[in-house]
Amino acid sequence: MQLTRHTDYAFRVLIYLCSEDKEQLAKASEIAEVFDVSLNHLAKVIHQLGKAGFITTLRGKYGGIRLARPPQDISLGAVVRAMEVTLDPVNCNQPVCRLRTNCQLKPILNRAMEAFVSTLDEYTLADVSQQDVQELFVIMAD
Amino acid sequence: MQLTRHTDYAFRVLIYLCSEDKEQLAKASEIAEVFDVSLNHLAKVIHQLGKAGFITTLRGKYGGIRLARPPQDISLGAVVRAMEVTLDPVNCNQPVCRLRTNCQLKPILNRAMEAFVSTLDEYTLADVSQQDVQELFVIMAD
Repeated sequence: MQLTRHTDYAFRVLIYLCSEDKEQLAKASEIAEVFDVSLNHLAKVIHQLGKAGFITTLRGKYGGIRLARPPQDISLGAVVRAMEVTLDPVNCNQPVCRLRTNCQLKPILNRAMEAFVSTLDEYTLADVSQQDVQELFVIMAD
Repeated sequence: MQLTRHTDYAFRVLIYLCSEDKEQLAKASEIAEVFDVSLNHLAKVIHQLGKAGFITTLRGKYGGIRLARPPQDISLGAVVRAMEVTLDPVNCNQPVCRLRTNCQLKPILNRAMEAFVSTLDEYTLADVSQQDVQELFVIMAD
Protein backbone atom coordinates (compact mmCIF):
# COMPACT_ATOMS: atom_id res chain seq x y z
CA MET A 1 0.00 0.00 0.00
CA GLN A 2 1.44 3.26 -1.10
CA LEU A 3 0.35 6.83 -1.69
CA THR A 4 -0.05 7.58 -5.39
CA ARG A 5 2.82 9.21 -7.23
CA HIS A 6 0.50 12.19 -7.65
CA THR A 7 0.45 12.80 -3.87
CA ASP A 8 4.17 12.08 -3.60
CA TYR A 9 4.92 14.78 -6.20
CA ALA A 10 2.47 17.16 -4.51
CA PHE A 11 4.52 16.92 -1.32
CA ARG A 12 7.75 17.49 -3.24
CA VAL A 13 6.29 20.61 -4.91
CA LEU A 14 4.97 22.04 -1.64
CA ILE A 15 8.26 21.43 0.20
CA TYR A 16 10.11 23.07 -2.67
CA LEU A 17 7.83 26.10 -2.52
CA CYS A 18 8.60 26.48 1.19
CA SER A 19 12.22 27.03 0.25
CA GLU A 20 11.40 29.86 -2.13
CA ASP A 21 11.56 33.46 -1.08
CA LYS A 22 8.01 34.72 -0.52
CA GLU A 23 8.34 37.32 -3.25
CA GLN A 24 9.87 34.88 -5.74
CA LEU A 25 7.68 32.67 -7.90
CA ALA A 26 8.79 29.17 -8.84
CA LYS A 27 8.45 27.79 -12.34
CA ALA A 28 6.97 24.35 -12.93
CA SER A 29 9.85 23.56 -15.31
CA GLU A 30 12.40 24.35 -12.61
CA ILE A 31 10.66 22.05 -10.08
CA ALA A 32 10.37 19.29 -12.69
CA GLU A 33 14.11 19.56 -13.28
CA VAL A 34 15.05 19.57 -9.59
CA PHE A 35 13.02 16.42 -8.93
CA ASP A 36 13.60 14.84 -12.36
CA VAL A 37 9.90 14.26 -12.99
CA SER A 38 7.93 14.80 -16.20
CA LEU A 39 6.67 18.35 -16.67
CA ASN A 40 3.41 16.93 -17.99
CA HIS A 41 2.68 15.00 -14.80
CA LEU A 42 3.87 17.87 -12.64
CA ALA A 43 1.51 20.28 -14.43
CA LYS A 44 -1.44 18.08 -13.41
CA VAL A 45 -0.21 17.98 -9.81
CA ILE A 46 0.20 21.76 -9.77
CA HIS A 47 -3.26 22.25 -11.27
CA GLN A 48 -4.80 20.12 -8.52
CA LEU A 49 -2.79 21.84 -5.78
CA GLY A 50 -4.16 25.15 -7.10
CA LYS A 51 -7.74 23.86 -7.19
CA ALA A 52 -7.35 22.65 -3.59
CA GLY A 53 -6.19 26.12 -2.55
CA PHE A 54 -2.67 25.20 -1.49
CA ILE A 55 -0.87 27.20 -4.18
CA THR A 56 -1.48 30.32 -6.27
CA THR A 57 -0.59 30.52 -9.93
CA LEU A 58 0.40 33.80 -11.54
CA ARG A 59 0.30 33.63 -15.32
CA GLY A 60 2.54 35.46 -17.79
CA LYS A 61 6.22 35.72 -18.61
CA TYR A 62 7.18 36.51 -15.03
CA GLY A 63 4.54 34.27 -13.60
CA GLY A 64 4.91 31.09 -11.62
CA ILE A 65 3.57 29.42 -8.52
CA ARG A 66 3.85 29.99 -4.80
CA LEU A 67 2.16 28.80 -1.63
CA ALA A 68 -1.29 30.33 -1.18
CA ARG A 69 -1.05 30.01 2.61
CA PRO A 70 1.73 29.93 5.19
CA PRO A 71 3.26 26.40 5.57
CA GLN A 72 1.92 26.10 9.12
CA ASP A 73 -1.62 26.42 7.72
CA ILE A 74 -1.28 23.43 5.38
CA SER A 75 -1.70 20.11 7.18
CA LEU A 76 -0.18 17.00 5.65
CA GLY A 77 -3.49 15.21 6.10
CA ALA A 78 -5.27 17.87 4.05
CA VAL A 79 -2.79 17.36 1.22
CA VAL A 80 -3.41 13.60 1.21
CA ARG A 81 -7.19 14.09 1.27
CA ALA A 82 -7.01 16.54 -1.64
CA MET A 83 -4.61 14.56 -3.82
CA GLU A 84 -5.53 10.89 -3.40
CA VAL A 85 -8.11 9.54 -5.85
CA THR A 86 -9.51 7.34 -3.09
CA LEU A 87 -8.98 6.66 0.58
CA ASP A 88 -11.25 3.65 0.46
CA PRO A 89 -8.93 0.89 1.75
CA VAL A 90 -10.49 -1.70 -0.57
CA ASN A 91 -12.78 -1.63 -3.57
CA CYS A 92 -15.76 -3.82 -2.70
CA ASN A 93 -17.32 -3.34 -6.14
CA GLN A 94 -14.63 -4.58 -8.47
CA PRO A 95 -15.24 -7.48 -8.46
CA VAL A 96 -18.39 -7.05 -6.42
CA CYS A 97 -17.76 -8.65 -3.04
CA ARG A 98 -20.60 -10.80 -1.85
CA LEU A 99 -19.82 -9.82 1.72
CA ARG A 100 -20.38 -6.13 1.09
CA THR A 101 -23.89 -5.87 2.53
CA ASN A 102 -22.80 -7.56 5.71
CA CYS A 103 -19.10 -6.81 5.89
CA GLN A 104 -17.48 -6.43 9.27
CA LEU A 105 -14.02 -5.90 7.82
CA LYS A 106 -14.70 -2.64 5.98
CA PRO A 107 -15.49 -0.49 9.05
CA ILE A 108 -12.23 -1.67 10.65
CA LEU A 109 -10.21 -0.91 7.50
CA ASN A 110 -11.84 2.52 7.39
CA ARG A 111 -10.85 3.10 11.01
CA ALA A 112 -7.24 2.20 10.13
CA MET A 113 -7.26 4.60 7.18
CA GLU A 114 -8.64 7.34 9.42
CA ALA A 115 -5.73 6.65 11.83
CA PHE A 116 -3.33 7.09 8.90
CA VAL A 117 -4.75 10.47 7.87
CA SER A 118 -5.29 11.65 11.46
CA THR A 119 -1.60 11.10 12.16
CA LEU A 120 -0.78 13.33 9.20
CA ASP A 121 -3.25 15.93 10.46
CA GLU A 122 -0.96 16.43 13.44
CA TYR A 123 1.74 17.87 11.17
CA THR A 124 1.92 20.78 8.77
CA LEU A 125 4.15 21.68 5.87
CA ALA A 126 6.14 23.84 8.30
CA ASP A 127 7.23 20.68 10.13
CA VAL A 128 8.77 19.17 7.00
CA SER A 129 10.36 22.26 5.49
CA GLN A 130 12.80 23.33 8.15
CA GLN A 131 15.85 25.42 7.41
CA ASP A 132 18.11 22.46 6.53
CA VAL A 133 15.83 21.38 3.69
CA GLN A 134 15.77 24.95 2.41
CA GLU A 135 19.55 25.00 2.51
CA LEU A 136 19.61 21.78 0.47
CA PHE A 137 17.74 23.53 -2.33
CA VAL A 138 20.14 26.47 -2.20
CA ILE A 139 23.07 24.04 -2.57
CA MET A 140 21.28 22.28 -5.44
CA ALA A 141 20.62 25.59 -7.23
CA ASP A 142 24.29 26.66 -7.03
CA MET B 1 -4.31 4.97 -1.44
CA GLN B 2 -5.67 1.49 -1.33
CA LEU B 3 -4.61 -1.98 -0.25
CA THR B 4 -3.63 -4.14 -3.20
CA ARG B 5 -6.22 -6.49 -4.67
CA HIS B 6 -3.96 -9.29 -3.45
CA THR B 7 -4.56 -8.32 0.21
CA ASP B 8 -8.25 -7.68 -0.46
CA TYR B 9 -8.64 -11.23 -1.83
CA ALA B 10 -6.60 -12.64 1.07
CA PHE B 11 -9.13 -11.19 3.50
CA ARG B 12 -12.02 -12.62 1.47
CA VAL B 13 -10.42 -16.08 1.48
CA LEU B 14 -9.71 -16.00 5.22
CA ILE B 15 -13.23 -14.82 6.07
CA TYR B 16 -14.64 -17.55 3.85
CA LEU B 17 -12.52 -20.18 5.60
CA CYS B 18 -13.91 -19.03 8.96
CA SER B 19 -17.34 -20.05 7.73
CA GLU B 20 -16.22 -23.57 6.90
CA ASP B 21 -16.69 -26.42 9.28
CA LYS B 22 -13.34 -27.24 10.90
CA GLU B 23 -13.32 -30.74 9.41
CA GLN B 24 -14.32 -29.56 5.95
CA LEU B 25 -11.73 -28.35 3.48
CA ALA B 26 -12.53 -25.59 1.02
CA LYS B 27 -11.57 -25.74 -2.65
CA ALA B 28 -9.89 -22.78 -4.32
CA SER B 29 -12.30 -23.13 -7.25
CA GLU B 30 -15.30 -22.83 -4.92
CA ILE B 31 -13.91 -19.64 -3.29
CA ALA B 32 -13.09 -18.19 -6.73
CA GLU B 33 -16.69 -18.80 -7.77
CA VAL B 34 -18.23 -17.33 -4.60
CA PHE B 35 -16.22 -14.12 -4.95
CA ASP B 36 -16.18 -14.10 -8.77
CA VAL B 37 -12.42 -13.69 -8.97
CA SER B 38 -9.95 -15.40 -11.29
CA LEU B 39 -8.77 -18.80 -10.06
CA ASN B 40 -5.29 -17.93 -11.30
CA HIS B 41 -5.03 -14.84 -9.11
CA LEU B 42 -6.67 -16.62 -6.18
CA ALA B 43 -4.12 -19.46 -6.42
CA LYS B 44 -1.30 -16.94 -5.91
CA VAL B 45 -3.11 -15.44 -2.92
CA ILE B 46 -3.65 -18.90 -1.41
CA HIS B 47 -0.01 -19.81 -1.99
CA GLN B 48 1.13 -16.70 -0.13
CA LEU B 49 -1.38 -17.24 2.69
CA GLY B 50 0.09 -20.74 3.09
CA LYS B 51 3.68 -19.46 3.08
CA ALA B 52 2.74 -16.92 5.76
CA GLY B 53 1.31 -19.71 7.91
CA PHE B 54 -2.31 -18.56 7.89
CA ILE B 55 -3.70 -21.55 6.00
CA THR B 56 -2.88 -25.21 5.49
CA THR B 57 -3.15 -26.93 2.13
CA LEU B 58 -3.98 -30.61 1.87
CA ARG B 59 -3.25 -32.00 -1.58
CA GLY B 60 -5.11 -34.73 -3.43
CA LYS B 61 -8.62 -35.44 -4.65
CA TYR B 62 -10.18 -34.76 -1.29
CA GLY B 63 -7.72 -32.01 -0.48
CA GLY B 64 -8.32 -28.34 -0.05
CA ILE B 65 -7.46 -25.50 2.28
CA ARG B 66 -8.37 -24.52 5.79
CA LEU B 67 -7.18 -22.08 8.45
CA ALA B 68 -3.91 -23.17 10.05
CA ARG B 69 -4.76 -21.36 13.28
CA PRO B 70 -7.92 -20.31 15.10
CA PRO B 71 -9.37 -17.02 13.75
CA GLN B 72 -8.63 -15.23 17.03
CA ASP B 73 -4.92 -15.95 16.49
CA ILE B 74 -4.76 -14.20 13.11
CA SER B 75 -4.54 -10.42 13.46
CA LEU B 76 -5.67 -8.25 10.58
CA GLY B 77 -2.42 -6.32 10.80
CA ALA B 78 -0.41 -9.52 10.34
CA VAL B 79 -2.38 -10.30 7.17
CA VAL B 80 -1.64 -6.84 5.74
CA ARG B 81 2.07 -7.12 6.61
CA ALA B 82 2.29 -10.54 4.96
CA MET B 83 0.35 -9.72 1.80
CA GLU B 84 1.32 -6.16 0.85
CA VAL B 85 4.31 -5.83 -1.47
CA THR B 86 5.31 -2.65 0.34
CA LEU B 87 4.21 -0.58 3.28
CA ASP B 88 6.57 2.21 2.32
CA PRO B 89 4.18 5.17 1.99
CA VAL B 90 6.19 6.65 -0.90
CA ASN B 91 8.93 5.45 -3.20
CA CYS B 92 11.80 7.91 -2.80
CA ASN B 93 13.89 6.13 -5.43
CA GLN B 94 11.67 6.23 -8.49
CA PRO B 95 12.36 8.89 -9.54
CA VAL B 96 15.13 9.46 -7.02
CA CYS B 97 14.00 12.26 -4.74
CA ARG B 98 16.71 14.80 -4.07
CA LEU B 99 15.30 15.33 -0.60
CA ARG B 100 15.83 11.72 0.43
CA THR B 101 19.04 12.20 2.41
CA ASN B 102 17.49 14.98 4.41
CA CYS B 103 13.79 14.25 4.25
CA GLN B 104 11.63 15.23 7.18
CA LEU B 105 8.44 14.03 5.52
CA LYS B 106 9.28 10.32 5.30
CA PRO B 107 9.48 9.63 9.08
CA ILE B 108 6.04 11.24 9.49
CA LEU B 109 4.56 9.20 6.63
CA ASN B 110 6.06 6.07 8.20
CA ARG B 111 4.44 6.98 11.52
CA ALA B 112 1.08 7.33 9.76
CA MET B 113 1.50 3.92 8.09
CA GLU B 114 2.37 2.40 11.45
CA ALA B 115 -0.86 3.90 12.85
CA PHE B 116 -2.76 2.21 9.99
CA VAL B 117 -1.30 -1.23 10.68
CA SER B 118 -1.42 -0.84 14.47
CA THR B 119 -5.15 -0.17 14.26
CA LEU B 120 -5.53 -3.45 12.36
CA ASP B 121 -3.39 -5.22 14.97
CA GLU B 122 -6.18 -4.54 17.47
CA TYR B 123 -8.51 -6.88 15.56
CA THR B 124 -8.38 -10.53 14.57
CA LEU B 125 -10.13 -12.61 11.97
CA ALA B 126 -12.57 -13.66 14.68
CA ASP B 127 -13.84 -10.05 14.86
CA VAL B 128 -14.78 -10.01 11.18
CA SER B 129 -16.21 -13.49 10.83
CA GLN B 130 -19.11 -13.50 13.22
CA GLN B 131 -22.07 -15.79 12.92
CA ASP B 132 -24.04 -13.55 10.54
CA VAL B 133 -21.29 -13.64 7.92
CA GLN B 134 -21.14 -17.40 8.23
CA GLU B 135 -24.89 -17.55 7.71
CA LEU B 136 -24.49 -15.45 4.57
CA PHE B 137 -22.24 -18.12 3.06
CA VAL B 138 -24.74 -20.82 3.97
CA ILE B 139 -27.49 -18.85 2.19
CA MET B 140 -25.19 -18.37 -0.83
CA ALA B 141 -24.36 -22.06 -0.98
CA ASP B 142 -28.03 -23.10 -1.01
